[in-house]
Amino acid sequence: MKFACDKESLLNAVQIVQRAVSLKNPLPILGGIKFEAEDERVFLSATDLEMGIRCSFPAQVTQTGSSILPAKVISELIRRLPDLPIYIESDPLTGSTMVKYGQSEANINGYPVEEFPDFPMPESEIKFILPGDVLREMVRQVVYAAATDENRPVFTGVLLETGNGEMNMVATDTHRLAWRKINLEKYQDLNINLIIPGKTLNELIKICGSAEQNIEITVTDNQVLFNNGEVCLISRLIGGQFPNYRQVIPGEYISRIRVSTKELAEATERAALLTRDGSPIIRLKISDNTLVVSVNTEAGRVREEIAVYQEGEPLQFAFNARYLGDALKTIGSEDVNIEFTGPLSPGILRPVADIDYLSLLLPVRLRDE
Amino acid sequence: MKFACDKESLLNAVQIVQRAVSLKNPLPILGGIKFEAEDERVFLSATDLEMGIRCSFPAQVTQTGSSILPAKVISELIRRLPDLPIYIESDPLTGSTMVKYGQSEANINGYPVEEFPDFPMPESEIKFILPGDVLREMVRQVVYAAATDENRPVFTGVLLETGNGEMNMVATDTHRLAWRKINLEKYQDLNINLIIPGKTLNELIKICGSAEQNIEITVTDNQVLFNNGEVCLISRLIGGQFPNYRQVIPGEYISRIRVSTKELAEATERAALLTRDGSPIIRLKISDNTLVVSVNTEAGRVREEIAVYQEGEPLQFAFNARYLGDALKTIGSEDVNIEFTGPLSPGILRPVADIDYLSLLLPVRLRDE
Repeated sequence: MKFACDKESLLNAVQIVQRAVSLKNPLPILGGIKFEAEDERVFLSATDLEMGIRCSFPAQVTQTGSSILPAKVISELIRRLPDLPIYIESDPLTGSTMVKYGQSEANINGYPVEEFPDFPMPESEIKFILPGDVLREMVRQVVYAAATDENRPVFTGVLLETGNGEMNMVATDTHRLAWRKINLEKYQDLNINLIIPGKTLNELIKICGSAEQNIEITVTDNQVLFNNGEVCLISRLIGGQFPNYRQVIPGEYISRIRVSTKELAEATERAALLTRDGSPIIRLKISDNTLVVSVNTEAGRVREEIAVYQEGEPLQFAFNARYLGDALKTIGSEDVNIEFTGPLSPGILRPVADIDYLSLLLPVRLRDE
Repeated sequence: MKFACDKESLLNAVQIVQRAVSLKNPLPILGGIKFEAEDERVFLSATDLEMGIRCSFPAQVTQTGSSILPAKVISELIRRLPDLPIYIESDPLTGSTMVKYGQSEANINGYPVEEFPDFPMPESEIKFILPGDVLREMVRQVVYAAATDENRPVFTGVLLETGNGEMNMVATDTHRLAWRKINLEKYQDLNINLIIPGKTLNELIKICGSAEQNIEITVTDNQVLFNNGEVCLISRLIGGQFPNYRQVIPGEYISRIRVSTKELAEATERAALLTRDGSPIIRLKISDNTLVVSVNTEAGRVREEIAVYQEGEPLQFAFNARYLGDALKTIGSEDVNIEFTGPLSPGILRPVADIDYLSLLLPVRLRDE
């Protein structure tokens, strides 16, 4: 492999694929980035065996070939190179790769190319296209509710479900749930049901660009590919059955408040300061168009009063402040509607004037109630 | 204690004194900030018993008194308060302090006032004044060379020595040394010799403002006080004898190079990437007006060529890349002169056209030499 390129293109590509590099993995080669020089382009790829990222940039290739270089060293080196043309040449026998810049050069020992895990691009007829901004916003609004605990893998994923010209995304860690629906009129006959790892979707957010950039999604039995034209993000799918989320969303309410998202978020943050890290429980009490947020712990007390628009019965209940804060952060509207069906039933947060998004929070049962 | 104030003044003061709060200390009260309301001003102070910070801000005080509040909770709370007038009232019996903002309030449990360590302001006739920018630059240029290992306390400090109308600051961790001199013509008769903890001086840098802001330095037998008019930083002094630094600075050289500070710093950084963290040793070789920086490790090789202006004999030697990088970062001139008296004698870095500053680096002896 021999090629010349500019620093910016190379650095950009390295920084993108590096997100799939697994530094903690016991398999050293997964700490590597694969370089492949083809006609006028160099392809970079990395994988942690669950997710893979592949991208390319233009280069003057004088000899095709490939090489696996340690991601940490190569990325740190390229970041620190002077703004000069860069010439890269690898020795196919030793795997050593020379990076030449000006009068200076670095020779980096690589991994054996044949040890790098196979990384095929998923191929399938099941494809659809979404605008980058729509997909990013949709993912952002649900992915936070996925579990991080690997014990029950289904809950670490996000359900992506299409049918009848609409697409739903849902995530839940069993304490909270987030659901988002969009129209998918162009794909009336697309019927898919996938569970995508939350970790992959957190990376997808970073490669989803503007409204003008379309993301092509290709689905196979056990993989999904997101392609924005420059970067390919490939992920395995999570097997198993996602719980029936429609069943847990209450259809009616006995109380509802409309409250400023920012005011409630700030009051929640302040109240949580006096709770213990492991148990950030805050109380909410609704009566007379006033919401009182309070905590009472060994460290002290907080009592916040917020004016709200109230319908239905007075009510009091308790929430995990972190979960409430997460839900408020993603709601995306100035005011939020919160619906309740009782002190021990879930609370439902909805943006005002948007019926296609909701966050559901289970209340916390307090000992003294 | 009862007072009203605005959020910004209070937050600013809390953030300044918080730097002296010791969260790791087993004595819980050292995690507190002392509030003292006096005539039209509120004083805040904190200490880790080695260093103390005290500052004040204007407030409408309606009842004098004091209170000790947990730094973490109070700073996080104040940071998150809305921009409204803040009213603070503490209960002298329980130590509980109410923070009222708009329709809401927090009550924070405090520590007993009498348990807070005594924190007297040092008083002495030995005083002098330096412009804030001069002091800050001087500290910055030497403090990096102080040791962080507490085993030999003298080396964790910086020597501040005055006499004959000049002032010297010196720090060394025994592998490197930094020395800076300034004129102190106004204080011909001031003869002091202090060892100030490096940790204090790192905080001093943050409170030394512009050239217009003078810092008054007050010295007692075991303390030093830096006062910028708004903030007082008090520190204990380190006992013991600082080594005779003049003795280790060579008077002449057999080789000298002048090199671009930036080029050498960047080459050093790149070369260090291929070394192991615990032993970042790089080789330097000077001949024919060229400096070659190189490493050769299991991870690979780097060879950087830099054009230099050379006087004297060709020479090769090895340095710790981190120490060389630190010295180059503080040199403050576009080109640096590096003087050598031999491959196993210290190298001396000096800014071009400034004879009052130098960094000394001991070379590393390599096994194969």
